[in-house]
Amino acid sequence: MKARVHVTLKPGVLDPQGEAVRHALGSLGFDGVGEVRIGKVIEVELDGADPAAAEGRVREMCEKLLANTVIENYAVEIS
Amino acid sequence: MKARVHVTLKPGVLDPQGEAVRHALGSLGFDGVGEVRIGKVIEVELDGADPAAAEGRVREMCEKLLANTVIENYAVEIS
Repeated sequence: MKARVHVTLKPGVLDPQGEAVRHALGSLGFDGVGEVRIGKVIEVELDGADPAAAEGRVREMCEKLLANTVIENYAVEIS
Repeated sequence: MKARVHVTLKPGVLDPQGEAVRHALGSLGFDGVGEVRIGKVIEVELDGADPAAAEGRVREMCEKLLANTVIENYAVEIS
């Protein structure tokens, strides 16, 4: 089973990495570029066959390690 | 208009960051965790209203900056 975790900064949280990319795009001549936000996608191969149990475990992984829940949101997909 | 770019390591390319996360999950007591792969999601706000033109520009941004095409694949969504 594969879990996919999307980790994104919460709205309103400054994204310095995104700002740096925005500036770099401008200096490369790309105009008309507004806000740039950067997130992570973490794919985790899991043993077991119960999607509900897997989702619970992955949420626990997010709370403990994969996401900084003070400034980040996460979404879990099981496939 | 918003573009979403998914940047992932090409299959077979070692993912040291993913390995580190896998080990950390193990030390936190999560067993049954196989391979972990980490990618990026870059959201870019764009002026203009022509999705096809926007996609072309974002692909150019990927080739020049957003992705290291030697070791990474990228996929572009326009919404």
